[in-house]
Amino acid sequence: MLIVQKYGGSSVANAERVFNVAKRIMRTRMEGNDVVVVLSAQGKTTDGLIAKAKEINAKPSRREMDMLLSTGEQQSVALMAMAISAIGGRAVSLNAAQVGIETTNTYSNARIRHINTERIENELDEGSIVLVTGFQGVNAIGDTTTLGRGGSDTSAVALAAALNADMCEIYTDVEGVYTADPRVVPDAVKLDEISYDEMLELASLGAKVLHSRSVEVAKKYNVKLVVRSSMSEAEGTEVKEDVKMERMLVSGVAADKKVSRISIMGINDEPGKAFEVFSLMAKEKVSVDIILQSTGADGKQNISFTIGEDDLDIALKALEKNKERLTAREIVHDENTAKLSIVGAGMATNPGVAAMFFEAMYDAGVNIQMISTSEIKITVLIAKDDVDAAMVAVHDKFKMASVNMRKAADTEE
Amino acid sequence: MLIVQKYGGSSVANAERVFNVAKRIMRTRMEGNDVVVVLSAQGKTTDGLIAKAKEINAKPSRREMDMLLSTGEQQSVALMAMAISAIGGRAVSLNAAQVGIETTNTYSNARIRHINTERIENELDEGSIVLVTGFQGVNAIGDTTTLGRGGSDTSAVALAAALNADMCEIYTDVEGVYTADPRVVPDAVKLDEISYDEMLELASLGAKVLHSRSVEVAKKYNVKLVVRSSMSEAEGTEVKEDVKMERMLVSGVAADKKVSRISIMGINDEPGKAFEVFSLMAKEKVSVDIILQSTGADGKQNISFTIGEDDLDIALKALEKNKERLTAREIVHDENTAKLSIVGAGMATNPGVAAMFFEAMYDAGVNIQMISTSEIKITVLIAKDDVDAAMVAVHDKFKMASVNMRKAADTEE
Repeated sequence: MLIVQKYGGSSVANAERVFNVAKRIMRTRMEGNDVVVVLSAQGKTTDGLIAKAKEINAKPSRREMDMLLSTGEQQSVALMAMAISAIGGRAVSLNAAQVGIETTNTYSNARIRHINTERIENELDEGSIVLVTGFQGVNAIGDTTTLGRGGSDTSAVALAAALNADMCEIYTDVEGVYTADPRVVPDAVKLDEISYDEMLELASLGAKVLHSRSVEVAKKYNVKLVVRSSMSEAEGTEVKEDVKMERMLVSGVAADKKVSRISIMGINDEPGKAFEVFSLMAKEKVSVDIILQSTGADGKQNISFTIGEDDLDIALKALEKNKERLTAREIVHDENTAKLSIVGAGMATNPGVAAMFFEAMYDAGVNIQMISTSEIKITVLIAKDDVDAAMVAVHDKFKMASVNMRKAADTEE
Repeated sequence: MLIVQKYGGSSVANAERVFNVAKRIMRTRMEGNDVVVVLSAQGKTTDGLIAKAKEINAKPSRREMDMLLSTGEQQSVALMAMAISAIGGRAVSLNAAQVGIETTNTYSNARIRHINTERIENELDEGSIVLVTGFQGVNAIGDTTTLGRGGSDTSAVALAAALNADMCEIYTDVEGVYTADPRVVPDAVKLDEISYDEMLELASLGAKVLHSRSVEVAKKYNVKLVVRSSMSEAEGTEVKEDVKMERMLVSGVAADKKVSRISIMGINDEPGKAFEVFSLMAKEKVSVDIILQSTGADGKQNISFTIGEDDLDIALKALEKNKERLTAREIVHDENTAKLSIVGAGMATNPGVAAMFFEAMYDAGVNIQMISTSEIKITVLIAKDDVDAAMVAVHDKFKMASVNMRKAADTEE
């Protein structure tokens, strides 16, 4: 088998952990597999480099940030090669330029376009374990790009797809995908499996276990993806196309506190105003999530939408500059907001799910500001302070814990 | 003018120094020059990375060490680009792969074969200051190589040669090239100029101000080279083909304490034995310096030679393994040795120099173990403990300080 493994920064944070991972990699190799390993930067390396940059320039260019940050992964792969060699294995480290991980040109948020597999395949043929820098690529002119925070997951899945690997294992510091954040909901349980679509929703809704783009790529190329712990031997969660076991109504609940809401009040009721607002946001590369448009008693329109809190300043500045053109009376914002979402393939065919969700919120005394739904998820915007209580209430309402535990018991028979 | 500047690790050790250098670079740019800057890794970065590697693997592969260490310079150039941008300049950082600094394949000690100038010239044409990682290159298969410690000097001079630059300025933490190490000889003086050949001898004899290979390249391509301080406005020392001013007998005295001596005793007096010894050393990539061969009273040969102390273990191991084949009775070594050298273009035409040198050693009570001479230098092997006293005695004997000061006074007229 050809197996791609990815280890995050905390799994390689110091020499001891590097050796633990080296042993795990060697075990996989000694079972007769070809092994390609994607590594993140060690522990707090990336944060340290960001701090160094900010000390010098409050708004460093994205190109130079990529140049700076990409060194972290290169250190990881070189050190891991040394560790594998120290325990008798054979490994070679490769950075994105050496592999040929070709990306778009958007510094700090590039997308992989193509991966040359020749160098990796040659090294595998020679019996080496191949260690590849995660998170980074090269653009058309050979400059270094990065895929955004968490992008090493995407590197691993894209490599697995390009190499036609039998499996892609994402090693992390939790044992898999849970029905809710176990730190908030103590009886949250680990899922044995989850579909790509559900995982995609959970990932994009704030469950930090997988980078959402990695799930998109896995779905597109049907990569067998397993999320598991680098610290234990637990089985982990398999992410796949079809989940065979009896479906739960709701697979999980996720929250994202890094959300701000902007409301543009009193816009003239003319065609094209919403288009103008969101064109502006697109031009500033601000991703917009939930959108709500309503007409006030005065016949004017109000447009509200949510964005990532990091984009708030840039979004407000662009809107204020164009306030007149947008015929807006007032632009207000709220930073004390969070998204809470439930995800489950079961909900599409069960109209009672939304009602149960809202009932749980009502029971917990949580006020809902905005609502957004899709085939397999419902998201509400609530106050940040309400998130933990709401998550416990929802988890409890859908009895995700017991459903899953029963399922687990069934599986063991 | 097109100027190549090189700043060492201590010149960019922290944010404050990075800004100092950024300002100096900007000043050069604002005077209307095109500027290419070569940077070393910040302060103790390289030492820190070496320590990390040694924690994981006592004998890491040279390929992986290069992969690891090359990240230090990449961080420096990215941070410098951010600093220049912060003070209103325009800069772009490039690593060796992006520039195309092609080297031989000898990891950790590669030599530059060719530099592609297209990318740099394009960036200069667009008005950017170009910041290039020192110390590193890429080999034929695109893997990262390094040029050996101090190799950033060579990067700078090679870039100046390839770009046909008007000047190559090496910024360091001393004000130029001195007649002796100022920490040992308090009245050592800075030279205004020195010839390539003299500088080459001084550099290879332990004067740490310039990487010796950089001087070779400067001489070969006739690069105008200036060594000066990044902390002051002092003029520095110009290294050039012909030194116009009245020649001093001796330009400088240098010492290298990282030397060990090996003696192979009682070899059969047969042809080819010396060849065998030094073939063995070449095979182990051990550089041999002073060689002395003598015949003992018993008709057997003794071969003594000096090597860098880091190579002692590997050299002894190879010799012991082949002791029988070499017909050696005994292999001894001495780690308490150092080289002391005087350098000066004037000495070739002045037979009294060697005598004065040996007289100074005699006066200082220093025993000479071996002697080696060339057109422009005399080197002696002495005990490590004698080095400082010998250096002061020699410096005094040749009155380098006063000669140079008189010369400086002449120049000012």
